[in-house]
Amino acid sequence: MLFKYTKGKPLPQETQGILAGKTLALLFTKKSLVPVSVRKPVGCLGGHPMFLGANDIQLGDPKKGGESWRDTSQVVGSMVDAVFARLGDHSEIEELAKYSSAPVVNALTAKFHPMQALADIMTIYESFMPKEEIMALLEDPDAQLPILHGVKVAWVGDANNIINSLLVCLPRLGISVGVATPAGYEIDEDIQEYVEAEAAKAQAEGRVYGTVVYTQDPQVAVNKAHIIVTDTWVSMGQEAEKQARLDAFKGFQEGGAMEDWKFMHCLPRKLEEVDDEVFYNEARSLVFGEAENRKWTAMAVFEEVGKFN
Amino acid sequence: MLFKYTKGKPLPQETQGILAGKTLALLFTKKSLVPVSVRKPVGCLGGHPMFLGANDIQLGDPKKGGESWRDTSQVVGSMVDAVFARLGDHSEIEELAKYSSAPVVNALTAKFHPMQALADIMTIYESFMPKEEIMALLEDPDAQLPILHGVKVAWVGDANNIINSLLVCLPRLGISVGVATPAGYEIDEDIQEYVEAEAAKAQAEGRVYGTVVYTQDPQVAVNKAHIIVTDTWVSMGQEAEKQARLDAFKGFQEGGAMEDWKFMHCLPRKLEEVDDEVFYNEARSLVFGEAENRKWTAMAVFEEVGKFN
Amino acid sequence: MLFKYTKGKPLPQETQGILAGKTLALLFTKKSLVPVSVRKPVGCLGGHPMFLGANDIQLGDPKKGGESWRDTSQVVGSMVDAVFARLGDHSEIEELAKYSSAPVVNALTAKFHPMQALADIMTIYESFMPKEEIMALLEDPDAQLPILHGVKVAWVGDANNIINSLLVCLPRLGISVGVATPAGYEIDEDIQEYVEAEAAKAQAEGRVYGTVVYTQDPQVAVNKAHIIVTDTWVSMGQEAEKQARLDAFKGFQEGGAMEDWKFMHCLPRKLEEVDDEVFYNEARSLVFGEAENRKWTAMAVFEEVGKFN
Repeated sequence: MLFKYTKGKPLPQETQGILAGKTLALLFTKKSLVPVSVRKPVGCLGGHPMFLGANDIQLGDPKKGGESWRDTSQVVGSMVDAVFARLGDHSEIEELAKYSSAPVVNALTAKFHPMQALADIMTIYESFMPKEEIMALLEDPDAQLPILHGVKVAWVGDANNIINSLLVCLPRLGISVGVATPAGYEIDEDIQEYVEAEAAKAQAEGRVYGTVVYTQDPQVAVNKAHIIVTDTWVSMGQEAEKQARLDAFKGFQEGGAMEDWKFMHCLPRKLEEVDDEVFYNEARSLVFGEAENRKWTAMAVFEEVGKFN
Repeated sequence: MLFKYTKGKPLPQETQGILAGKTLALLFTKKSLVPVSVRKPVGCLGGHPMFLGANDIQLGDPKKGGESWRDTSQVVGSMVDAVFARLGDHSEIEELAKYSSAPVVNALTAKFHPMQALADIMTIYESFMPKEEIMALLEDPDAQLPILHGVKVAWVGDANNIINSLLVCLPRLGISVGVATPAGYEIDEDIQEYVEAEAAKAQAEGRVYGTVVYTQDPQVAVNKAHIIVTDTWVSMGQEAEKQARLDAFKGFQEGGAMEDWKFMHCLPRKLEEVDDEVFYNEARSLVFGEAENRKWTAMAVFEEVGKFN
Repeated sequence: MLFKYTKGKPLPQETQGILAGKTLALLFTKKSLVPVSVRKPVGCLGGHPMFLGANDIQLGDPKKGGESWRDTSQVVGSMVDAVFARLGDHSEIEELAKYSSAPVVNALTAKFHPMQALADIMTIYESFMPKEEIMALLEDPDAQLPILHGVKVAWVGDANNIINSLLVCLPRLGISVGVATPAGYEIDEDIQEYVEAEAAKAQAEGRVYGTVVYTQDPQVAVNKAHIIVTDTWVSMGQEAEKQARLDAFKGFQEGGAMEDWKFMHCLPRKLEEVDDEVFYNEARSLVFGEAENRKWTAMAVFEEVGKFN
């Protein structure tokens, strides 16, 4: 449950030691600050993290002397109680989940990034609901996250694993999404189809479902947006486009974003993606809270892992 | 004691926390999946693992600015409660054991690989004794592993640290060993002499001791074998020999291995060493259980380390 | 408090678990054996270490796609309870301390190396006070380290972070310091000014303050010294100077050091810095005790970190 773990809230008694005696393999084939967000949650719940980098394992093409995903998955799965994996191609985590006897958590693939989406959702709720209200909700063990009807999130950047994951989650919370991607870097068709199918299902069942708009024009995406999320804009190398993009950026507000629009970004940022004025503006930028929420949402996920075995 | 720690058996009460407050340095100058097999045992017994890779220490020739084994051993030994070391030349671990004030466990050298031998022995016993019988044995604290008279293990591959360690252990458990190595890659003479001396001693004392046969012909080694262990065959690169070897492989059964022969391999495998048909055959292949046994036998070893200090 | 944690002294009850549930980031951009000296203290006090090497984070010039110190500091600081950082330029740790919400411990910068200075001070006291006397001192919670009036420490080597830190600490303990550095590698002016100002302050307040002498001649520095600390002599590559230095070394005793002078060095040593005869001489060399004291003093520092939050 989101918000069960958050700043200043003591560790709930029933989850202390829920991972006692359990070892989580943290299989990271890409370098990042993610291990930091994971170390404390695992330790707090009493578990043992086991970091495995690309250099620790001998994964690769068996024809070239590497070990196959199948063999590695089966061995790692028999040694630990869960695997938290940050991989490349999405097929790799599917292979891992297929052959590992221990449960596998997706900590990032090229297709999806559910851990970031959870942290983003937590950050969005913190932005729209007073914390006391959220805490009060938690008193009821069957409580659901309330629908955030009328809230709009804008994405300005290449299609990637983060916006894919947000598109899977946000609309069902009532949140509308404006997605601006550069030409040639649009959202994958299967994601678009998924969103369409879910919208139809929600309508049939009388449930709220946020609207989703795809565009190549950042101004359209940010129009009336409460929260703007940016990421790399692939064609940025070309000076003309870069200028166009920066202008667009300055124009977020005139362009129609809500007056008190907030800014989100998954870090690390590249300078072209956002300037210091927005990035370090405490009234506008949610980026550091968003980063910290990676820790709290990881804790909630690890609690579930602890229940699994 | 083997089998004290095994799948589904709860952690014995007296060993919970036996490593509490203790730190084990895991000194690995080679990359491998071994840390995975070690993380959980150390954590379960309450200890703290400290992974040290080649990049973490500055070992090397002092004349070229590196730190000597002597200095590193003395410093590491004063900082931790035990050292679990996976090194290159066997003289390195002898140096380490000489200068470290903390006990040193051999986690692999070019000469011996006792941790793999322990996992292999556990796997062999699982293959020949019903688990309930083994568990019943553990009730008696003075119980010894029963003699496996009549069992034959065949080794097909270069002489290396694993077969060296198996030759030290298996015959005294009553197990016969057929060793097929390619020309020029025979078992070291000192190992052969050790086996001979032990056989003589056993005979003098009236104890059972498995017979050991050395050959260059896989068919001779696997004749009447219950378990076949393979590893790299050095001259494999030469097409003719490779074909000869593969034929030999297909011929294991016709060649005289017991009808229900089992297959062992220490992983990771190279494709030339064994084909998928054998490797993933659940009725024949013991490889994944063998890998998991690395975890359980490490636990038994760490328990001893915990008693040492 | 120094000596609260030391060889053979059981962990004081009130500090057991003082780091329970706390995670310390160990941010090391340089390879070293330091993690070993840190793993056990953190574990003993119940905390969780989180090792972060240069490869784990993406620090660098944001203009080249790296993450700025500011952003990394803020994110890491929000994820852990303290940061123990071993960095390059001293400005980096100042930046880290400025933006991290978690307390930051200097585990080495190019300017200062306080953790080594603490271990050295502990080693010096062990050399001049019987251990029972020191232990008796600890009974009084308000006890201060006694003044070591008349003791002289000589430094022979380039000016660096270690002698900088010793110059900040030793004189106020009554210890005199002779500093021999090669031409062009003298102590920074700001350090010299600091020492001068502190001496004046001590005189004004009637407190003892050790005298400090700067020279380019090792013989002058070691004259009447009880303890000689050596480190790299930069111009050593030039054969003539190297010979001059080695002669100086042999001449330490004739040159006027106290007959039973002791030797200290922070490890790892380069062969030119000290020969085996001194380095491994148990009566003279304090180097391995000095290395072990890194562990005990780290423990005292981590206890303070545990009180901080």
